Amino acid sequence: MKTKSLRGRDYITLMDFSKEEIETLLDMAIRLKMDRASGRKHHLLEDKTIFLLFYNRSLRTRNSFESGIMQLGGHANYLDSEKIYTPALVGEEKAFATERVPDVARVLSRFGEAIAIRMFGDPTGWEYGNGNKYIREFARWADIPVINMEDDMFHPCQGIADILTMKEKWGSLKGRKIVISWAYSPSMKKPVSVPQTLMVGCSLFGATVVFARPKGFELDPKIIQRTKKNVEYYGGSFEEVDDIREAFHQADAVYPKSWPSLQYLLPVTEKPNFEGMSQLFEANRSWIVDDKLMALAKKDCLYMHCLPADRGFEVTDSVMDGPNSVIFDQAENRLHGQKAVMSMIMRG
Amino acid sequence: MKTKSLRGRDYITLMDFSKEEIETLLDMAIRLKMDRASGRKHHLLEDKTIFLLFYNRSLRTRNSFESGIMQLGGHANYLDSEKIYTPALVGEEKAFATERVPDVARVLSRFGEAIAIRMFGDPTGWEYGNGNKYIREFARWADIPVINMEDDMFHPCQGIADILTMKEKWGSLKGRKIVISWAYSPSMKKPVSVPQTLMVGCSLFGATVVFARPKGFELDPKIIQRTKKNVEYYGGSFEEVDDIREAFHQADAVYPKSWPSLQYLLPVTEKPNFEGMSQLFEANRSWIVDDKLMALAKKDCLYMHCLPADRGFEVTDSVMDGPNSVIFDQAENRLHGQKAVMSMIMRG
Amino acid sequence: MKTKSLRGRDYITLMDFSKEEIETLLDMAIRLKMDRASGRKHHLLEDKTIFLLFYNRSLRTRNSFESGIMQLGGHANYLDSEKIYTPALVGEEKAFATERVPDVARVLSRFGEAIAIRMFGDPTGWEYGNGNKYIREFARWADIPVINMEDDMFHPCQGIADILTMKEKWGSLKGRKIVISWAYSPSMKKPVSVPQTLMVGCSLFGATVVFARPKGFELDPKIIQRTKKNVEYYGGSFEEVDDIREAFHQADAVYPKSWPSLQYLLPVTEKPNFEGMSQLFEANRSWIVDDKLMALAKKDCLYMHCLPADRGFEVTDSVMDGPNSVIFDQAENRLHGQKAVMSMIMRG
Repeated sequence: MKTKSLRGRDYITLMDFSKEEIETLLDMAIRLKMDRASGRKHHLLEDKTIFLLFYNRSLRTRNSFESGIMQLGGHANYLDSEKIYTPALVGEEKAFATERVPDVARVLSRFGEAIAIRMFGDPTGWEYGNGNKYIREFARWADIPVINMEDDMFHPCQGIADILTMKEKWGSLKGRKIVISWAYSPSMKKPVSVPQTLMVGCSLFGATVVFARPKGFELDPKIIQRTKKNVEYYGGSFEEVDDIREAFHQADAVYPKSWPSLQYLLPVTEKPNFEGMSQLFEANRSWIVDDKLMALAKKDCLYMHCLPADRGFEVTDSVMDGPNSVIFDQAENRLHGQKAVMSMIMRG
Repeated sequence: MKTKSLRGRDYITLMDFSKEEIETLLDMAIRLKMDRASGRKHHLLEDKTIFLLFYNRSLRTRNSFESGIMQLGGHANYLDSEKIYTPALVGEEKAFATERVPDVARVLSRFGEAIAIRMFGDPTGWEYGNGNKYIREFARWADIPVINMEDDMFHPCQGIADILTMKEKWGSLKGRKIVISWAYSPSMKKPVSVPQTLMVGCSLFGATVVFARPKGFELDPKIIQRTKKNVEYYGGSFEEVDDIREAFHQADAVYPKSWPSLQYLLPVTEKPNFEGMSQLFEANRSWIVDDKLMALAKKDCLYMHCLPADRGFEVTDSVMDGPNSVIFDQAENRLHGQKAVMSMIMRG
Repeated sequence: MKTKSLRGRDYITLMDFSKEEIETLLDMAIRLKMDRASGRKHHLLEDKTIFLLFYNRSLRTRNSFESGIMQLGGHANYLDSEKIYTPALVGEEKAFATERVPDVARVLSRFGEAIAIRMFGDPTGWEYGNGNKYIREFARWADIPVINMEDDMFHPCQGIADILTMKEKWGSLKGRKIVISWAYSPSMKKPVSVPQTLMVGCSLFGATVVFARPKGFELDPKIIQRTKKNVEYYGGSFEEVDDIREAFHQADAVYPKSWPSLQYLLPVTEKPNFEGMSQLFEANRSWIVDDKLMALAKKDCLYMHCLPADRGFEVTDSVMDGPNSVIFDQAENRLHGQKAVMSMIMRG
């Protein structure tokens, strides 16, 4: 178990961490989960502050961080980006309403112990990678760890919770068929962060990773490449298919959710083209998860979703609320996973 | 004193609690008030989270909850409904902006120990009962207690504070003439929660409850019915009158405030009719509390209000700030009453 | 060292405090800074609440207060003025959206231990003194200390941090040439609170205070008068000049920042005249701090700014990020200075 190596690190993508380090975080999460369940006080970050900077709505992320740091003896400052001098990159400044990222990062570093940021979608201008660039700029200037609360590339806090959930259910991911699938929704304005994080994460643990999406919903080739390298090194396999039925066949876990087509967003296009994208969405309305589809998978197959889900579109109520669904366990594990991350990277 | 029976309960209306249980809450409130006054630490809810979900403005409720849980060793997550995925009932959902109440309730149940909600007026579409229905839907799905921070029917946190204030002043409510009265204001957009809660609460303790309102400002017959049953069982009396002067005569306490006419709101009407309602309001401009009116009551009659009050309309400054006014004691007792509720119902 | 005299006091302007009292606050700030650096727990305000009421954006002030009170064992309730019943002066009330200041102040006094307020600019109608008047009205009615988080006259929390920073660098301000200077910015909508606070503060400690501004950017004569009296009594000197180059010559510290011309605001004018003011601003575009200007000062001259700065206007990046800049030390000292203020005036 490597522990010292985590102190002071940023938590921006699982790709920055070794398999062993991620296993340490998972072990710590389980330990903290037991501590809470048994009422054992665990003030590992007494009087420490984490700044939670949000450019987007949040239910799970905000509340699990705010409760989590408090359970660790510290405190979260919840910051709406509109209520502070909004951090802005060079060239995007507005006098007395914004402040440059390097200045914000360096100021906050003087008051507290970590900065967590959520930024995707509209605030990024829908240029793929912009949100991540923005968080990396924070990390470059901050003297304290920076945590990614979801950007337009990654959602490592969801990732750790998802892996933790599967480990709890199965003991090990080894040999398990895990399906990461696109699903239809009338709402296109979401990031691709969850599936991209998940495929990298699962590929570390010997799983049979199947990535299913209609043509046009391919993901970042760099992430696919990394996933392939991981399975080569750690065992397991990776396959990309365009048939959701084939993918679900005998699956141990399915994780179907909607994401936009990167083909209609910057930098591929000159400006976001949601009208064009909507045709592609409508052409794939059949990618909806219902009981019939679930019947193709193993009987005890886990139905997973990061939430919020578009009920009636991405998935039927009967699946969401059915016996296979582990969505609330995933949500709970956000709390424990993030407490593990905070307690390991924020200087204690 | 029944205490065990309170653990894990929802606190949505005083009507859900027995007289003995309410007395237990009052006793606990006094104990906690003394603890604070004497500087005695009382961390009864260490590291516990209460979620405060607001659809409306709040000064007293939010600050008394947020300070109160902190004094108990826990923490409040203040949630503006627009900043989370707004909880929505089935059929009122908007993709990636709302999330179904059952999902929100079950997720928050994994992170913390209670959910408190305020919802009345515009967010309910002015259909009487909608706010309460919404909070009950939360309670149905949450594994943790749900607290009503004021809906369109009840305000039990105000109720406990009001009864506590009278008990402090008098020792007992028995035989006291308590006047719950309508008062004029240019602002019609308020809930009926306070008078409805108050009449139910006072009717448990042997008081002479007088309910005064102009024709057209009658309240929910189910609440009136319950109040009548209470006085039948516990002693005291209940009377409904349409003359404020008669009501104030020899009163021990008066609680005049403005509320809308339910006759002009859903489900009685098809849509809210505030123009029609305003004529009824203007016809009753004389229902203003001034020194002359107060002179009809007993010399040491308590002037009560939940605040905020429309000064110069509902009541003159001379009464609000005069020797009979106990409005700030009521406000303070919000803190102690709610701390009692939290410490008894949130699993310690 | 006078300590008892600080308990229960308001902290609205440095002008309300003796030199000895300010020295006590500085000493306490250093002590608390060392406590934090060495990881020594200092819960001097356990379970105490400070209410932070903001009418304007804030990064440093909010986060240093929220982290600071938490490090002291207490909690800050962050209040957006739009989310509570907005405190309003008599005559500016709006039914069920605002509440009179005396009522808000007296209610909050029942729940917590201090009220801190920020109000300048648009919410004051740009009538000089209005923000301060509003905070004084709060202080008049509150039973607990009121802290000025920046109004349209003063910013005493910045002041204590600035003096602390200079004391850290020099040991003493005695004989040091400190230049408080106007600087150009395309944004006119700022308060004059920082330079006015600084000149009063520095004049207590034997400094050579030089105040540089173009014609038209003079400050409040009452503040100038007080500054002159201070140097007469405590030693040092005060000079007002209209040449920035002359001012910078051999300076030990320069504090150049933009502020509006009071000649174009109420009560001098009948309404704010920003078009007229902008001509005065444009006529003084040369008041920008760059390396050439800094070269006139001493080699180790401190470059100071309260932040946020309009980079490229008030000051070049090379100066902001250069070896003379102490801007992040100033920001950090906000935390320690305010913790000193809170721990001394909030009843422990």
